Amino acid sequence: MSASARPVSTGSESLTLMGGGLVGSLLALYLARRGHAVQVLERRPDPRRVGAAEGRSINLALSDRGWRALEGVGIGEQVRQVAIPMYRRVMHDVRGQLTHQPYGHDQQAIYSVSRAGLNRVLLDLAEAEPGVTLRFDQQCLHVDLRDQELQLRDTATNEEYVQPYQRLFGTDGAYSAVRGALQKTDRYNYSQSYLDYGYKELNIAPGPDGGWQLEKNALHIWPRGQYMMIALPNLDGSFTCTLFFPYEGPHSFATLQTPAQVEAFFGEVFADALPLMPDLADDFFQNPTGSLVTVRCYPWSYQDEVVLIGDASHAIVPFYGQGMNAGFEDCRVLSELLDQHGTDWRTIFQQFQQQRKPNADAMADLAIYNFEEMRDRVADPRFLLQKKIESKISAQYPDQWLPLYSQVTFSPDTPYAEALANGQRQERIMRGLMEHIQQEADYDLPAVQELVRQQMQHMHDEEAG
Amino acid sequence: MSASARPVSTGSESLTLMGGGLVGSLLALYLARRGHAVQVLERRPDPRRVGAAEGRSINLALSDRGWRALEGVGIGEQVRQVAIPMYRRVMHDVRGQLTHQPYGHDQQAIYSVSRAGLNRVLLDLAEAEPGVTLRFDQQCLHVDLRDQELQLRDTATNEEYVQPYQRLFGTDGAYSAVRGALQKTDRYNYSQSYLDYGYKELNIAPGPDGGWQLEKNALHIWPRGQYMMIALPNLDGSFTCTLFFPYEGPHSFATLQTPAQVEAFFGEVFADALPLMPDLADDFFQNPTGSLVTVRCYPWSYQDEVVLIGDASHAIVPFYGQGMNAGFEDCRVLSELLDQHGTDWRTIFQQFQQQRKPNADAMADLAIYNFEEMRDRVADPRFLLQKKIESKISAQYPDQWLPLYSQVTFSPDTPYAEALANGQRQERIMRGLMEHIQQEADYDLPAVQELVRQQMQHMHDEEAG
Repeated sequence: MSASARPVSTGSESLTLMGGGLVGSLLALYLARRGHAVQVLERRPDPRRVGAAEGRSINLALSDRGWRALEGVGIGEQVRQVAIPMYRRVMHDVRGQLTHQPYGHDQQAIYSVSRAGLNRVLLDLAEAEPGVTLRFDQQCLHVDLRDQELQLRDTATNEEYVQPYQRLFGTDGAYSAVRGALQKTDRYNYSQSYLDYGYKELNIAPGPDGGWQLEKNALHIWPRGQYMMIALPNLDGSFTCTLFFPYEGPHSFATLQTPAQVEAFFGEVFADALPLMPDLADDFFQNPTGSLVTVRCYPWSYQDEVVLIGDASHAIVPFYGQGMNAGFEDCRVLSELLDQHGTDWRTIFQQFQQQRKPNADAMADLAIYNFEEMRDRVADPRFLLQKKIESKISAQYPDQWLPLYSQVTFSPDTPYAEALANGQRQERIMRGLMEHIQQEADYDLPAVQELVRQQMQHMHDEEAG
Repeated sequence: MSASARPVSTGSESLTLMGGGLVGSLLALYLARRGHAVQVLERRPDPRRVGAAEGRSINLALSDRGWRALEGVGIGEQVRQVAIPMYRRVMHDVRGQLTHQPYGHDQQAIYSVSRAGLNRVLLDLAEAEPGVTLRFDQQCLHVDLRDQELQLRDTATNEEYVQPYQRLFGTDGAYSAVRGALQKTDRYNYSQSYLDYGYKELNIAPGPDGGWQLEKNALHIWPRGQYMMIALPNLDGSFTCTLFFPYEGPHSFATLQTPAQVEAFFGEVFADALPLMPDLADDFFQNPTGSLVTVRCYPWSYQDEVVLIGDASHAIVPFYGQGMNAGFEDCRVLSELLDQHGTDWRTIFQQFQQQRKPNADAMADLAIYNFEEMRDRVADPRFLLQKKIESKISAQYPDQWLPLYSQVTFSPDTPYAEALANGQRQERIMRGLMEHIQQEADYDLPAVQELVRQQMQHMHDEEAG
């Protein structure tokens, strides 16, 4: 049997999911496979019925945690067909010079997938499952926790109505209406925190032959200190670029007000990309400026009746490419708890939030940290040298030293909090080591190798003690 | 002329204050004295019309920042008549042994005042001011920032109505409805964070002769590690006690469920207080359990139309006794900005929030830190020795070394953020020093004195460099 083996049903219940995005549709699959009746309510129209022209092309990086969760319902292979592996970062400097940095070893990659495309696949799969019903255009106006009722508006008919729920899963994202109800309960811990940066999606067109105008199997970065642009490949030969840019300041959304200003700015700082972006000015002024929020809250559940999953409880900034992966991992972890506890929802929700909260917090910190790294440090020769040395250490001590990025990205299940703690320990070692290293070859100095061994032993002893 | 000299009016405007508590009523005075028309809307009934029996006796510690703000409208003397100075902490150990710790030097004290009594005085003064109108029983249901309208409910008549505002001051406390509207604006940073502790107000009765059964001019503390009780004197010979206690755990609100359990617990851990608390069990089960929230948000203003003042923008836990004082200081700072900028409200609100936000954040941190100190450390002999040594240093270097507590409490205007930074530097020095000190007399060792001098010089040089 494959990993999609259908678990034994543990009693059918009527479950309501508010939100049919990536996490909601995957969770619907997980829950329906257990024999539960699952109703998915989604605020937006059915993305499968919207003309392709309407949706902008947003892509996301799927990595091992995400794959594991998809494989948990047997749909990994299906998604892999529409995913483009990216084996390395390609850094573009201001003169158009390229520097390559592999993400991992061998065939390790993160995968560029279209958000809308993946959502459509997951919705199709969920809808084909017995017991799943999908209802679009259903806006949640209010959740009455006491009476277990949703106040909804059908945005197609503008009709408002009340619907009871037995068990409610808040998969409605960073601006979750379900979380809004939890937030009003006694002693609710909550924070929403914005970066002073926004993002703008732009586009690199396919070449005249329909091919990719930059290296296809890579994530491209134009790091520029106080801002940066990235690009991920799409199946149609284009790349979706995202400019992460300050709202205010000398170089900022506030100062780029005309097409001429935008063209001049890109010509100066993203010179090699500009010729590949024929619609730059249109995209820049037509596409909305997105904000970058980190949401933290606790608890994630209310009695045995309501639980938050994915961005609804832990929206993070996109710089580690883990938002979707963390949400998918939520589904996998919840499913494992269902294996253990059947329909003892109180225990399941309690253990879920206790297990996931420290990991969500760690991932939120890592995502902000990676923003600083991508923006500032990947253009720094000393940082690149440190990364090279670290990969040598990792090659020499593969069991003891897995780089932080790999622990987060290429581990299917190392808890984020554990990855963060390991990463901080390794960073301390690396900083000490770099004082002794001027160039790559220095790593082969016996003295340096001895130092590495000693420090790793020392750290190991300290932890054991 | 006294400090209450009426400033020159800079043009009369119609100002709306949502909230007529301590900060709202003081702010009304400040604004009306400038010739503005001030309407104060308050959710609760007029506290001057409620029977004395109805309100519980809550008292607060007024300190120098608060006095300065009261004196700014010439009412310091009036309030001082009903305030009881507390010159020191008196710690009660489990055996009833007392330890005394002065708050400052000479006549420095913090002042116990009745919250309700002070509110009534401020409301009387505000109402007597031309241009001030007070309306009670007005609940704010919604603030429409775009149309500048308040949706209100008159809780006496249950009538709902809409009222426009020109300029709105959110003085409506920790659960501010005005902040609720700001929170929905784009990129709003917000957090609410609760301690795992609640508080319960209890009472120590006056003695048979009507006098105080504990030392009157002191703040009493029963520190017990994971919880504590404090008591502040009232004018009628009673003390208001506050028990700060975990919600859950071995000793917690969850485990004290019957009068017998409460009496037994108090008999064990607050043995000297128990005989003075004849209504203990009744108070314990009739008084609500309060929660302890820290609120942080930014920005505090919306255009030149709305601004948050006091707890609405920076609710803090009560352990430094600075919540009311910080709110009163807001009024004083806002008034100084009005002196500088007249009715340029945009500049006033911008500068107000930029100036106050770092100080509010510092005070929030200090309040949580002081909770840990009061709960755990004031019962630790090493800590008490450190405090004694510190007071010797302060006596020897009065210009260079003012203890953190004094900077916060007995300075009328040192910014909280500056006090925190100074305090952290001093704490580092003290920790280093305490390694060389076993008893109080050790401070007189020439080597220790030399060390103090060196460290202070070193810190000073580092800051200058």
